[in-house]
Amino acid sequence: MDAVAELVESLPAGVVATDPATMDGYRFDWSKDTGAGTPVAVVRAEDAAQVQAAVRWAARHGVPVVPRGAGSGLSGGASAVDGGIVLSLERMRAIEIDADCQVAVVEPGAFNAEVKAASREHGLWYPPDPSSYEICSIGGNVATNAGGLCCVKYGVTTDYVLGLDVVLADGTLVTLGGKRIKDVAGLSLLKLFVGSEGTLGIVTRAILRLVPVPLPPATLVASFGSVVDAARAVVDVRRTLRPSMMELMDQASINAVEDFSPRGLDRTAGALLVVQSDAPGDARVAEIAVVEAACVAAGASEVVVTDDPAEGEMFVEARRMAFPAVEARGALLLEDVGAPVPLLPDLLAAVAAIAVEHAVEIPTVAHAGDGNTHPIIVYDAADPDSERRARLAFDDILRAAIRLGGTITGEHGVGRTKKGALPEQLGEDVMALSRRVKDALDPAGILNPGAVL
Amino acid sequence: MDAVAELVESLPAGVVATDPATMDGYRFDWSKDTGAGTPVAVVRAEDAAQVQAAVRWAARHGVPVVPRGAGSGLSGGASAVDGGIVLSLERMRAIEIDADCQVAVVEPGAFNAEVKAASREHGLWYPPDPSSYEICSIGGNVATNAGGLCCVKYGVTTDYVLGLDVVLADGTLVTLGGKRIKDVAGLSLLKLFVGSEGTLGIVTRAILRLVPVPLPPATLVASFGSVVDAARAVVDVRRTLRPSMMELMDQASINAVEDFSPRGLDRTAGALLVVQSDAPGDARVAEIAVVEAACVAAGASEVVVTDDPAEGEMFVEARRMAFPAVEARGALLLEDVGAPVPLLPDLLAAVAAIAVEHAVEIPTVAHAGDGNTHPIIVYDAADPDSERRARLAFDDILRAAIRLGGTITGEHGVGRTKKGALPEQLGEDVMALSRRVKDALDPAGILNPGAVL
Repeated sequence: MDAVAELVESLPAGVVATDPATMDGYRFDWSKDTGAGTPVAVVRAEDAAQVQAAVRWAARHGVPVVPRGAGSGLSGGASAVDGGIVLSLERMRAIEIDADCQVAVVEPGAFNAEVKAASREHGLWYPPDPSSYEICSIGGNVATNAGGLCCVKYGVTTDYVLGLDVVLADGTLVTLGGKRIKDVAGLSLLKLFVGSEGTLGIVTRAILRLVPVPLPPATLVASFGSVVDAARAVVDVRRTLRPSMMELMDQASINAVEDFSPRGLDRTAGALLVVQSDAPGDARVAEIAVVEAACVAAGASEVVVTDDPAEGEMFVEARRMAFPAVEARGALLLEDVGAPVPLLPDLLAAVAAIAVEHAVEIPTVAHAGDGNTHPIIVYDAADPDSERRARLAFDDILRAAIRLGGTITGEHGVGRTKKGALPEQLGEDVMALSRRVKDALDPAGILNPGAVL
Repeated sequence: MDAVAELVESLPAGVVATDPATMDGYRFDWSKDTGAGTPVAVVRAEDAAQVQAAVRWAARHGVPVVPRGAGSGLSGGASAVDGGIVLSLERMRAIEIDADCQVAVVEPGAFNAEVKAASREHGLWYPPDPSSYEICSIGGNVATNAGGLCCVKYGVTTDYVLGLDVVLADGTLVTLGGKRIKDVAGLSLLKLFVGSEGTLGIVTRAILRLVPVPLPPATLVASFGSVVDAARAVVDVRRTLRPSMMELMDQASINAVEDFSPRGLDRTAGALLVVQSDAPGDARVAEIAVVEAACVAAGASEVVVTDDPAEGEMFVEARRMAFPAVEARGALLLEDVGAPVPLLPDLLAAVAAIAVEHAVEIPTVAHAGDGNTHPIIVYDAADPDSERRARLAFDDILRAAIRLGGTITGEHGVGRTKKGALPEQLGEDVMALSRRVKDALDPAGILNPGAVL
């Protein structure tokens, strides 16, 4: 019996798929990484024991394992590998809310939005909110240490992970952390697995901290002549407060959204800031006033404030729409670069200059309050020169972020598409240290090989 | 030339001490760990290069290195080791505030209080606040992932560490993270070093996130008939809000403080809760009202509210005084056990039962809002039976916490005094995994041997 037949035999019917048509749906994530390979099997595990069985099989045969959540990753972290298996967690979707402990106990395939919805039934909230929250899985969120729009006030995924069950490279299942809030017993292995992009182990369960549902936010939308002016307003606001959201759209992304799904945004604005405050009582009014003053001081041409959550959500949705809207314009290379917040104007100016230099369109949105930006490089996949210029711009933007003391990825992960630039950011010694940790946990290198390191 | 002479020669005059009188001051931390050994030298490094030189020397000669901050640790994490060196960071105290980036760039020997003071000059605040904040160092805070009183709302040390310079076991200096807020490039090595208690590397610089100074808090003090009633009020409050402080003192700790430094606390109360709200505007009044209602519902006999920060600070200071006050009563074994918040009443009831069973006095204070408690076992060091009973109680409390899904240490660290109970909490597989990470980073085992693992 060959190895794949052994795998099929060892798991219940329907868990392992080997037909090319099914497997084709598991080769790519949203980055459409052109380097994605062809797997020998896709395992759609139904529980942790099946994950263990598949990993033990892979360890025995030296077969690469690419863990996969909802496939909404943007860095090729879930690109299939030739000769490997894809280990999909999409069927493991249980969600249990412990309202007393204020935690959600979640299987990795559950969507972020599903955890939010289940929590809300108990008056609780799971804050991290990637723009893709309706279609991304918690497993993927943990793997990338995903961020989102509310992170400027509420933090990122790692801040909410209290416990993890992880299947290691030899198939051992370990339980880390638990429902307690503070715990410093032993090394911080829990935090090490968050953001490890499937290279150190496979998460089969997460215990997520929940918080009381915040109040409905007030929303401010300000128009600026340029992204640099808008970024200056952001820097100013942060001196004294943390709004619950501080998002930026540049003119190209505004127009992409208006083309794709018109909602009356000001197409002539150089940039829009969408800011929310969910502060309690009269503090919300005070916070919005601080933001308004900062916007006016930075040269905002128009400022609109609404207390109506539905109206506010319309603007936020427009911001979330930017990625699909730009996707409709051509092939994309999506950036996720960040810089220290005061250098946000410099980073955005650098992106604009790179767009001119390489004659490419780079609509940009940003979680501005965190200094995390998403320049989206659009190119014509049918035109080799357009693609060449796009790739040059991609590398130049990564380099610009590093030069500003920033990062090549603030929340999407390194995956396979940004791997080339990682040594430039981290340096040789940190790369070597990372490799030592990887080798200690996965000596045969079967877990998501080719990703990150 | 023998090895120690080589060390003395290799560093500037005054950096290496080898005289017994000086070295005696570096054998113990505050736990007064009876297993502390005698070092062959104390290195009081003045910069990272000297730390590297000392570690390289130690690696060459296979000499244990015990890193030491201010020596205020409570778990024997800085106990000297026979034949080893103590590497003191007390002279590395530079603090630089980058107000634009809202970070403090800090050397490890700087005190927590010094970082707070330097930040405040720029309208900024470094939240983590161990009770010992006036005498504990940032290096030690990072090593233990220290908590404190405000953590219920503001989080613990790891939530504020954006960057670290770390000297590894072979003397290499690596720089992790930076001044950017969001960064998922590569493995979360930064978070792995936080809380590693000097077993993986030696921190020579930390970049700490600062936040705008919060508003002066309102304070509520409530008296209860029992700690269990007080704990029930805490559980109730947490359902809907996060006050900026929620501390508990039991009757024995109240009386210890009154004996030590009288301030008019109610000696007849079974427990006091000290709760603060720093919410902005009218939300502060609303929060305090919620807390008051919960206290009354849980049977509080008296509730006092003050808007005067100085009066409020008096109660908080009384709470912070508990440890020195109890220390005046005899020898101590200090616990740091935690449980999921809803099980706080059970944990406190278990502690009370253990005190009766072993006929020992166990005054208890707690960061109640986080489920983190400090039962302080008092014994007579001159009476072997008293000490024997104290040690039995110590182990029983650790076991009770584990049984409740809690932890043997919420913020002090495992060090050497709680090491015996760690395998019971983590289990064999997690211990083995921890050992693999340790071996990968410190193959010769020279960094703080005997601590944690």
